[in-house]
Amino acid sequence: MNIPAYTDVVEAHLLVERFAHRTPILVSESINHITGGEIYFKCENFQKVGAFKFRGATNAVMSLSDEESIRGVGTHSSGNHAAALALAARNRGVHAYVVMPENAPEIKKKAVAGYGAKVTFCSPTLEARESALVNVIAETGATEIHPYDNFEVIAGQGTAAKELLEDESSLDIVLAPVGGGGLLAGSALSIRHLSPETRLIGCEPAGADDAYRSFKRGKLIPSVNPQTIADGLLTSLGERNFAIIKDSVDGIVTVSEESIIRAMRLIWERMKIIIEPSSAVPLAAILERKVEVQNQKVGIIVSGGNLDMGNLPFS
Amino acid sequence: MNIPAYTDVVEAHLLVERFAHRTPILVSESINHITGGEIYFKCENFQKVGAFKFRGATNAVMSLSDEESIRGVGTHSSGNHAAALALAARNRGVHAYVVMPENAPEIKKKAVAGYGAKVTFCSPTLEARESALVNVIAETGATEIHPYDNFEVIAGQGTAAKELLEDESSLDIVLAPVGGGGLLAGSALSIRHLSPETRLIGCEPAGADDAYRSFKRGKLIPSVNPQTIADGLLTSLGERNFAIIKDSVDGIVTVSEESIIRAMRLIWERMKIIIEPSSAVPLAAILERKVEVQNQKVGIIVSGGNLDMGNLPFS
Repeated sequence: MNIPAYTDVVEAHLLVERFAHRTPILVSESINHITGGEIYFKCENFQKVGAFKFRGATNAVMSLSDEESIRGVGTHSSGNHAAALALAARNRGVHAYVVMPENAPEIKKKAVAGYGAKVTFCSPTLEARESALVNVIAETGATEIHPYDNFEVIAGQGTAAKELLEDESSLDIVLAPVGGGGLLAGSALSIRHLSPETRLIGCEPAGADDAYRSFKRGKLIPSVNPQTIADGLLTSLGERNFAIIKDSVDGIVTVSEESIIRAMRLIWERMKIIIEPSSAVPLAAILERKVEVQNQKVGIIVSGGNLDMGNLPFS
Repeated sequence: MNIPAYTDVVEAHLLVERFAHRTPILVSESINHITGGEIYFKCENFQKVGAFKFRGATNAVMSLSDEESIRGVGTHSSGNHAAALALAARNRGVHAYVVMPENAPEIKKKAVAGYGAKVTFCSPTLEARESALVNVIAETGATEIHPYDNFEVIAGQGTAAKELLEDESSLDIVLAPVGGGGLLAGSALSIRHLSPETRLIGCEPAGADDAYRSFKRGKLIPSVNPQTIADGLLTSLGERNFAIIKDSVDGIVTVSEESIIRAMRLIWERMKIIIEPSSAVPLAAILERKVEVQNQKVGIIVSGGNLDMGNLPFS
């Protein structure tokens, strides 16, 4: 199994920074007051396509040989990776073929089509997605770019934590949400190299806790019927991702749905920024005191800001 | 009638910049694409207390003599000015007495109390607010700081447009929402001095169009039973405000409720920032083509980001 190292993140960054925003790091006095910590939010909700996924997709697409690229790229994704791959492909001037579950949020379907990808809808099961993608790849000869279990994607996602550490030194803790593990594994590569003393904690919904269970038992245990409002975290950990995470992450904690919604609302109300439920999971872990941040300098990677405004969890 | 000039905005800025954020100016590629303009959003939703009102309140409170300040300050306000005055008073270490209508948004009630103001609730009519405030002032000897029809408040609000023009030169048009007229009048002082060629347009909900009617007829015509989701714009234009606006603003346009909600959603979805309905009125005017922005460089003052998350107009 081919696993990236920090040098691959550095190479990825040279490609990624040509296309992606260097996103701002925001601080909220009132959230610091509530939590007792000093929290730095790396705002990938302001990234192109509204999510960190643009980093990994860009690295994957821009790393293809000309010969590979000419046949395009393909993937299955519930949303942000699909939009990211579509835009990265458009930036290189090649085709993107995307398999999406028919129940993906409307805003994500629109975004993918808007970036010019050819979209195939399928049933919302991993099996249906995989078999639809096999057909698309067979027909087109496109290169599959897996949403997270992919060398270049992991290296690309690591560039968010690299920027965070470059801009904010001496962080005691970094928190990142974990679904397939692209962001967490990539962050681990950057943090272990740039700031070995910083603790890296993955944050996961209790209703989709395969990373927590896998980390605890030291072997990959996929999710069975995960349920969470954090739709970006429904996927199970990838093999490459777990191989990095099991050795380089300091812990994984789980949070309730109520905490996710509360944390999301807190960020919306106090920071006046839109984040998607998946991005609220790290602050939820702080609110639940699964991570103690009193007098600690904490980085949180805010993964994205895409959600259906017509279906919000506030009442 | 005592009316401020640009020199008063400059003096105000010296006080305001010690306490307020110099808010960022954001650009959205996709909103530029949709509108055909080049739009610069001056983000007062990221201001302290979540609204530009903190500028005027700060200037008013910090301009008081020590003798005046010791008896505190008082006002009636549906929300943002109340929170702004409460925080400005706390920053100076003096009392704030605030009369609020009982139907004010929960988030605004909480904010005002949280900043340590003494709150008196009253019926949601101008008469009830004014008579409750008369009583409070009589009891306390506090100085009344009117939310908009006040010399120092207008000068303070002008600092937002001053910063906008300092940071972005050669704007063809500046758009600001208009309710009581503090922001629009203050902006007029800055724009007429710093960039005389820039057109300044006030934007108002059709359901609360007293500024539009007053501007057209050249005399102050108060609102009767105004109705709009833009709760910050329900108040009628003040006398000092109109005196400035009638000579220094290039036009006032009105927009529908549907356009306000559409514009608000567009900013939420594309820019990933929370703005309140009042702040969406200028973009609504562009979407309705009440203001033509094709190939124009346009500044919009985003007035604030406070609203009840439990009562959003999306479905």
